[in-house]
Amino acid sequence: MNFSEESLRIHEQKKGKIEVVSKVPLQTRNDLSIAYTPGVAEPCRRIHEKSENVYKYTAKGNLVAVVTDGSAVLGLGNIGGSAGMPVMEGKSILFKSFAGVDAFPICLDTQDVDQIVETVKHIAPTFGGINLEDIAAPKCFEIEQRLKKELDIPVFHDDQHGTAIVVCAGLINALKLVRKEMKEIRVVVNGAGAAGIAITKMLLNLGAEDIIMCDSKGMIYEGSALGNKYKEEIAKITNREQQKGSLKDALVGADVFIGVSVANIVTKEMVQSMNKDAIIFAMANPIPEISYEDAKKAGARVIGTGRSDFPNQINNVLAFPGLFKGALSVRARQITEEMKIAAAYGIASLIQEEDLTEEYVIPDAFDKRVTDIVAKAVADKAVEQGVNRI
Amino acid sequence: MNFSEESLRIHEQKKGKIEVVSKVPLQTRNDLSIAYTPGVAEPCRRIHEKSENVYKYTAKGNLVAVVTDGSAVLGLGNIGGSAGMPVMEGKSILFKSFAGVDAFPICLDTQDVDQIVETVKHIAPTFGGINLEDIAAPKCFEIEQRLKKELDIPVFHDDQHGTAIVVCAGLINALKLVRKEMKEIRVVVNGAGAAGIAITKMLLNLGAEDIIMCDSKGMIYEGSALGNKYKEEIAKITNREQQKGSLKDALVGADVFIGVSVANIVTKEMVQSMNKDAIIFAMANPIPEISYEDAKKAGARVIGTGRSDFPNQINNVLAFPGLFKGALSVRARQITEEMKIAAAYGIASLIQEEDLTEEYVIPDAFDKRVTDIVAKAVADKAVEQGVNRI
Repeated sequence: MNFSEESLRIHEQKKGKIEVVSKVPLQTRNDLSIAYTPGVAEPCRRIHEKSENVYKYTAKGNLVAVVTDGSAVLGLGNIGGSAGMPVMEGKSILFKSFAGVDAFPICLDTQDVDQIVETVKHIAPTFGGINLEDIAAPKCFEIEQRLKKELDIPVFHDDQHGTAIVVCAGLINALKLVRKEMKEIRVVVNGAGAAGIAITKMLLNLGAEDIIMCDSKGMIYEGSALGNKYKEEIAKITNREQQKGSLKDALVGADVFIGVSVANIVTKEMVQSMNKDAIIFAMANPIPEISYEDAKKAGARVIGTGRSDFPNQINNVLAFPGLFKGALSVRARQITEEMKIAAAYGIASLIQEEDLTEEYVIPDAFDKRVTDIVAKAVADKAVEQGVNRI
Repeated sequence: MNFSEESLRIHEQKKGKIEVVSKVPLQTRNDLSIAYTPGVAEPCRRIHEKSENVYKYTAKGNLVAVVTDGSAVLGLGNIGGSAGMPVMEGKSILFKSFAGVDAFPICLDTQDVDQIVETVKHIAPTFGGINLEDIAAPKCFEIEQRLKKELDIPVFHDDQHGTAIVVCAGLINALKLVRKEMKEIRVVVNGAGAAGIAITKMLLNLGAEDIIMCDSKGMIYEGSALGNKYKEEIAKITNREQQKGSLKDALVGADVFIGVSVANIVTKEMVQSMNKDAIIFAMANPIPEISYEDAKKAGARVIGTGRSDFPNQINNVLAFPGLFKGALSVRARQITEEMKIAAAYGIASLIQEEDLTEEYVIPDAFDKRVTDIVAKAVADKAVEQGVNRI
């Protein structure tokens, strides 16, 4: 099937993908008097009396804004908020379909950090959570940090943390399979954008100690990216020997390659230079850093990509629906690092150790068990940490 | 039925009233590849190439934001954006139920004019139209004016114009019944808030020449409300003899009373002082300026209220669903004064002259013909004026 053509056809025929419908009847005068005036005054009054009642009487508690400025949409780059609408509608229906969470696209006409923060803050009363989407690095970091500080609802940049959670879930299982320990492996993360930085930080939190991050110029070390405070920060916590050199140099002897970069940048020879039982997560979309077949031929043991037509698909849909479902279920004030880690372990736990194979370290995107196990792990952790409101 | 109790019960049970659902299937890998990545890239690309394509491939063209700052919610006053959510959800489902228009509540955490304008501007790419709701006068005027200027989609403050359209529709028919001409009647509008000012302006546009507007201090004349530029403007175009005095004074000899003010402010004696065949639209909610029964006893000929349990209910639901449906259907850049007047005549036209009675000058809120006749009238007028895009 030609997905582009079929996608155009469906989008045009249906005029987009979302619809806002009523959960209550509106057929009679009585229906109207209950759903609207005069009856509706009473829930309004109750919320005015006690602000937390907004969760009791409105859709807020199950409603997520999918917010973009369109500055980094899929592989398309900076196409602007309006052109990002099909992706945001798509994301919204994934929320509903995978977790029963209502989500709504908010496509912004600004790419200014202050304006984005202000706008999201001003519309926040409607929502129980904010999913930031397809906002370019490095400004995505500042936007997320500021919104987390200013809002008392979960704010989550999926391109960073959704990807990080699923990568970590896959790596937890892959390491079990190859019998290596997180604290002993050398990991090379290629691509220092939103996802790469988030993955690196999460791996450090999971106990990895030896990570080298590369950008398009090669290994990041202290002084390699002056002026980019996020890369400077990364340089301080990775590459402990402060090595310099290319991605190729970095990969020699590495146990794990994680690519969130560009197509065909890793050769078979580079894979062959890696340590035994190499793990390759090559997630450039739609063409990975090295193809599944080539990585296999070069001797990699576990290979994952972003594609659904090969084993071990690293798909954010494994994380964000359950993550928000869990956070919303306890009215979490935020999504903490520990909640994300709980989500990663939750996903990983779905595959028993005896069922792990090279081709099955990550559950299938359509595995019906995923959302609930993630939701439960996240909700439990939120309660444990006391960031819940119920 | 106790609407307050039943409303609380339903709102709590259903957790609000809106739900965001998918118009496309999401059951299989293929479904995902069409609705989301990789297929979705193509509609994004087409919109990036030609911005108007956002209407072709997304939900925007049928999507209205119901925006409030909660500064004037129903009869509850300034309860804030969050507490206004039940009303905005209610309004949203009325849009869907009455016109098939998807609408979504945006409850703001700010009541600052500049911030409201900026916020709505920034989220506008998602929407085909903006319905402002329950924003207090006088700032609602400035907000609407600025947004109309800055956006190329319809912006409509329903508390002003929705009410004005339905009042005018009712008055057009009532005047036919009592055989009076618009340009000959004296109209007293009591209440100089959003609705009162909009009604007065629309009546002037419909040919009324003799209108006296009253606020809580009595008749508005030049100099009576120095510093309130909206009342000053009204004073220049109404009360041509620049009379001073109370509402009671104003009503002596008047043909029409239009109340958008407070309960029980008009007495039977005041109605008796009016001209023969008096028309009373007493729309204070939930208790009108004078009860239907008292107005009847005092000799008024045509009486309308905001209530569904008496004849001639002045209900905005007669206007806004069809109005937006029509405007969206031709991708109107704005809703002009002439389009609103077309809507009023459209509503009025549903009752043939021979069918008009004192108790039936306005169609029923559930009259299935209303939305489409309004939509057609509005769309035709938009095309005639060239504010359409298709």
